[in-house]
Amino acid sequence: MSTNPYYGQEGHGPYELISIGALDLEEGGKIPDCRLAVATHGALNAAKDNAILVPTWYSGTSKIMEQVYIGKGRALDPEKYFIVVVNQIGSGLSTSPHNSDGALAGPRFPKVRIGDDVRAQHRLLTQHFGVERLALVVGGSMGAQQTYEWAVRYPDMVRRAAPIAGTAKNTEHDFVFGDTLSDAITTDPGFRGGDYGEPAEVAAGLKRHAKIWTVMGWSTDFFRAGRHKALGFDSVPAFVDNFMTGYFAPMDPNNLLAMAWKWQRGDVSRNSGADLAAALGRIKAKTYVMPISHDMFFPPGDCEAEQRLIPGSEFRPLKSIDGHLGLFGTDPAMLAQLDGHLNELLAAPAA
Amino acid sequence: MSTNPYYGQEGHGPYELISIGALDLEEGGKIPDCRLAVATHGALNAAKDNAILVPTWYSGTSKIMEQVYIGKGRALDPEKYFIVVVNQIGSGLSTSPHNSDGALAGPRFPKVRIGDDVRAQHRLLTQHFGVERLALVVGGSMGAQQTYEWAVRYPDMVRRAAPIAGTAKNTEHDFVFGDTLSDAITTDPGFRGGDYGEPAEVAAGLKRHAKIWTVMGWSTDFFRAGRHKALGFDSVPAFVDNFMTGYFAPMDPNNLLAMAWKWQRGDVSRNSGADLAAALGRIKAKTYVMPISHDMFFPPGDCEAEQRLIPGSEFRPLKSIDGHLGLFGTDPAMLAQLDGHLNELLAAPAA
Repeated sequence: MSTNPYYGQEGHGPYELISIGALDLEEGGKIPDCRLAVATHGALNAAKDNAILVPTWYSGTSKIMEQVYIGKGRALDPEKYFIVVVNQIGSGLSTSPHNSDGALAGPRFPKVRIGDDVRAQHRLLTQHFGVERLALVVGGSMGAQQTYEWAVRYPDMVRRAAPIAGTAKNTEHDFVFGDTLSDAITTDPGFRGGDYGEPAEVAAGLKRHAKIWTVMGWSTDFFRAGRHKALGFDSVPAFVDNFMTGYFAPMDPNNLLAMAWKWQRGDVSRNSGADLAAALGRIKAKTYVMPISHDMFFPPGDCEAEQRLIPGSEFRPLKSIDGHLGLFGTDPAMLAQLDGHLNELLAAPAA
Repeated sequence: MSTNPYYGQEGHGPYELISIGALDLEEGGKIPDCRLAVATHGALNAAKDNAILVPTWYSGTSKIMEQVYIGKGRALDPEKYFIVVVNQIGSGLSTSPHNSDGALAGPRFPKVRIGDDVRAQHRLLTQHFGVERLALVVGGSMGAQQTYEWAVRYPDMVRRAAPIAGTAKNTEHDFVFGDTLSDAITTDPGFRGGDYGEPAEVAAGLKRHAKIWTVMGWSTDFFRAGRHKALGFDSVPAFVDNFMTGYFAPMDPNNLLAMAWKWQRGDVSRNSGADLAAALGRIKAKTYVMPISHDMFFPPGDCEAEQRLIPGSEFRPLKSIDGHLGLFGTDPAMLAQLDGHLNELLAAPAA
């Protein structure tokens, strides 16, 4: 176990650490005391029908969901809804490689799948919060993977689903992209097979990882339009160094690798003998599939192919040249589109 | 100097090695005896007005241009034209890191720019072949960079220009992509700062480099459509291992790095005080700008922005989900489109 000031209440709180007990893992092994870092907004009503679950993405925490997506007057309005943001396992806030001890510490952390997160969240919601139905599950990227997994695994519990910029079954192209990200980290001699002392010893690998994110995370249109300048950076190198590298540098490499491994293998068809159509056909939630127009690795085409397999679903792409990392909230117009779709979805009759 | 059986007449011939003498380089220093590997098809006519120049792309040689683009009945028809395919400096066939001695050997090879190649080719064409006008310059990717450089630098010599899947001024996004490719190689401990014994010692780095190419070289639509299967590979991992990694594995890492450095810095505005519009405004060649619809790093949008700056030019995108590496000739329909455009261009009145 190592301390890492990045993952603290100061930068990412307030959140509450809630133990859901021992979690058996799909790949074998278990997390003996699985703790989920949870941020809630608003209150559960008497009918217990206003709960919204928001899972998190690769490298993200509940903080960015709060800052960018939740607020009075927004679709995710704490005055109307009880919004539960759950940081994924490996995120650095919930049980993760860097904050685990002994047999689970660092590179010895067991392989965790999207399905493990979703089962852990299910226990949290039902046992800790007494929530039996969800008005909505909404998340971006790996949060979309968890959203799909929720809708397939617990079709009677999820009334509405809004997967943003993510897929139900990860593509093989995206798997290779994940490899390139992880390779950038693990090939740094300072990584030492995961037994580095602190993230700074893996700074070069984390920077290479940030560069690959720069190439794939935004879009060619983003850079042609000089969006990096609009965001306050004089040049692309400054953007790479100060924004992208600065963002990832304090994070724990083993945490990132645990999340990347999970991301690469997201696949709801594991619930149905590898039959994706059967898995998505189970969904009862009213589902809006919302890719981002210029996303280079969860592109609209891949998302639309899945959307067609979901009964009663709608394809609601978001238009933004910011691409995948528009999820960061860099494009207010995209957030406005998103809120419009979510308001409509929340107003729609649902399962 | 090292021998590398990959770069031989057997795999890439026939070609002729032609010395163009000492070449002073834009970055300083010189290549004392610059030799260009040249493959010609057809014969120069009496009027000396049927010459076509074809420069090569990153990792490519004159062989693939011959196999995929040149032939009787094709737009590039040796029965009509004198087609000169010139392997770029650093390609492994022309003067390159791996086949240079002493002060130029391996990692000590000087930095070469697109402009250096084009001046070397100009000397070759005028002094060796006695060609004073070019009916067409056509090339893909780095070949497009050289095509643009030709049209800007020698506007009175180039009658027609067909840059395919490349830009006149490399984008900053593409520069970062280039970094990720080079980083994959140079971070391999076996690379030893360029002083490896043979490419196999850098196999792991070359494989990572091939994976990044897999992510960016084709397109998400290519993989969704199972195009890798149509090309004869059972799975994406088999495609990565046997096709992509197999393709790059025998190549010399220092050669690849020399080409990548050059590619990242392609910029015709160096001829006009960094004024891209002024540089492209000089072009007299009838120019068809031909990006590939699904190219992830020389995308149509970037190419069209440049096309608008070229007097009398036309935007002629090629439609293929194979993306950038459709240049390999994997999509016959795209080649048919290309031939159609080139036939039209060659029939058009030109400068």
